[in-house]
Amino acid sequence: MRAHVTKKILSEGLSLLERVIPSRSSNPLLTSLKVEASAEGLTLSGTNLEIDLSCFVPAEVQEPQNLVVPAHLFAQIVRNLGGELVELELAGNELAVRAGGSDFKLQIGDFDAYPPLSFPTHADVSLDAAELSRALGSVRYAASNEAFQAVFRGIKLEHRGESARVVASDGYRVALRDFPANGDGRNLIIPARSADELIRVLRDGEARFTYGEGMLSVTTERVRMNLKLLDGEFPDYERVIPKDIRLQVTLPATALKEAVSRVAVLADKNANNRVEFLVSEGKLRLAAEGDYGRAQDTLDVVQGGMEPAMSLAFNARHVLDALGPIEGEAELLFSGSTSPAIFRASGGGGYMAVMVTLRV
Amino acid sequence: MRAHVTKKILSEGLSLLERVIPSRSSNPLLTSLKVEASAEGLTLSGTNLEIDLSCFVPAEVQEPQNLVVPAHLFAQIVRNLGGELVELELAGNELAVRAGGSDFKLQIGDFDAYPPLSFPTHADVSLDAAELSRALGSVRYAASNEAFQAVFRGIKLEHRGESARVVASDGYRVALRDFPANGDGRNLIIPARSADELIRVLRDGEARFTYGEGMLSVTTERVRMNLKLLDGEFPDYERVIPKDIRLQVTLPATALKEAVSRVAVLADKNANNRVEFLVSEGKLRLAAEGDYGRAQDTLDVVQGGMEPAMSLAFNARHVLDALGPIEGEAELLFSGSTSPAIFRASGGGGYMAVMVTLRV
Repeated sequence: MRAHVTKKILSEGLSLLERVIPSRSSNPLLTSLKVEASAEGLTLSGTNLEIDLSCFVPAEVQEPQNLVVPAHLFAQIVRNLGGELVELELAGNELAVRAGGSDFKLQIGDFDAYPPLSFPTHADVSLDAAELSRALGSVRYAASNEAFQAVFRGIKLEHRGESARVVASDGYRVALRDFPANGDGRNLIIPARSADELIRVLRDGEARFTYGEGMLSVTTERVRMNLKLLDGEFPDYERVIPKDIRLQVTLPATALKEAVSRVAVLADKNANNRVEFLVSEGKLRLAAEGDYGRAQDTLDVVQGGMEPAMSLAFNARHVLDALGPIEGEAELLFSGSTSPAIFRASGGGGYMAVMVTLRV
Repeated sequence: MRAHVTKKILSEGLSLLERVIPSRSSNPLLTSLKVEASAEGLTLSGTNLEIDLSCFVPAEVQEPQNLVVPAHLFAQIVRNLGGELVELELAGNELAVRAGGSDFKLQIGDFDAYPPLSFPTHADVSLDAAELSRALGSVRYAASNEAFQAVFRGIKLEHRGESARVVASDGYRVALRDFPANGDGRNLIIPARSADELIRVLRDGEARFTYGEGMLSVTTERVRMNLKLLDGEFPDYERVIPKDIRLQVTLPATALKEAVSRVAVLADKNANNRVEFLVSEGKLRLAAEGDYGRAQDTLDVVQGGMEPAMSLAFNARHVLDALGPIEGEAELLFSGSTSPAIFRASGGGGYMAVMVTLRV
């Protein structure tokens, strides 16, 4: 086999696969990259047993052959090459990688021993890739990386007629985002770590879904991905969304982020980074206290609702996470000192964070 | 005490001190920042017992008083403040820090218990701060962070009449840089870790040196620093600088850095990252070999000297370090396959790296 491919396109494909393919594994074959050549180009693929990923790279190929190479070394070599055009040539058990004055000979692995990876060719439903990626990215923070209950380590995708919704929760907070979608898909739970990779590979165009047994395949113009789904019942998060809003404030999200970051410096790390929110007379006063002193910050807000004043406490870390996806004006909806609160963008946008309050 | 100071200037001073003052210590007082107020401003100082550092910050001060505060918390608070003007007010055992809508109350420490820090007022000799900083920065890499022999963890400063020289070595390589200097100073060895801080605080203007017992004080317009010197005999590094140059090549430093980085990907980490240099007929061929394959790169060079060809081997890591301070054209001077080699900038500049070769 002999192939000519531009360094830029090959590097881009390799950088996606590098994130999925483990750099170390008790099964060294899993650290390999599978390269399948056809007249039109190279299909690069790999797996970490949770996610299978495949990416097509257009190339000029003569005498197509298939091979496996050490994924991370190959990617590192390609990235460091001088010159724009890369020549690959398979000779014996070595893959030559050439560009400019460089000539690398990389030992290849055993192609036949590599686990077969198969990707579906039909699609069951299709979503807008950019919308899906943004929605997953907005709620990802609320999923836990360690929670004992598997569903708290996942992101639920719900089809709701004219729209779809992603929801994540770690049991203390809920983040959700609605986005436009057509078609009836299945509700399913994607492991948060797999969602991270999905967020990375999705760009423009369509994300075509194919449902399998405990598994989802996502196909875009560039890539194909299989991912294992999480089993289990996602908690009834709608139950915790407060309906009876008694006080509401609107203020620039950035000002609130900065003020919370500021007072959190003195918040007690051993008491949930507790920051108090005191609303009254068009002011939001933030206060925190710890071993080294006290902090206070006052912000002007637009205040509404039937209660004239309210005092609540939150975990500063959680407040900052919840504000992360909000640009422009933020709207904070309070239903009481001991009830969950809603943070969302003023004017909608489909995103909402629901947070428990700390005991006052 | 009450002081008004601009956030930018105060933050800059604090960021220098934050690097020296430990964030944790078995003696909690050492994590404090000392603030001495006068009518003209605030003198901030701290120590890690290796280095004492002091920095003057102009401020408007009423009823000057002295205090100590937790250094890292105070710096973090100031950095996060909104607004350009910071108000500091000492009341009881709390320091109020105010700006914009923020009001922090930080508990102060026991000023009298803090170790006295004294800085000399006269100067023995004076060097150009920018030249000294650049020279120290160029040779720092060659000093070891772990070597058993203390002098290998230091940088030697030599006064040589019309010039000064800094030299560092870890026993396998030597880096030196000459720079213009007037006056007769003492030769001394600065711990490399203290040199790191010195590099950071030196900018323009003069660096005034005052010699003490096993100690050097450096004063600039902004800062005053005391540092402990290393005791011991610096090795006779001039002995290893080869005099009999038999082959010499000139090529762009960047091209060589990139090519060495490239082939080093396949070099054997367990064999000193060995990269071979083969010079002949106006070409420099780099070659490396490891468990996963072989790499080769060919560069055009301007070749000179009486030997028509030579083959040498180096540690790739050391080659990259040695090339670090070289911009433009690099000159490699070889005296034989088993003798040390010289890397320097073509056309001088005072910097020179000397490296042992690996066995061919």
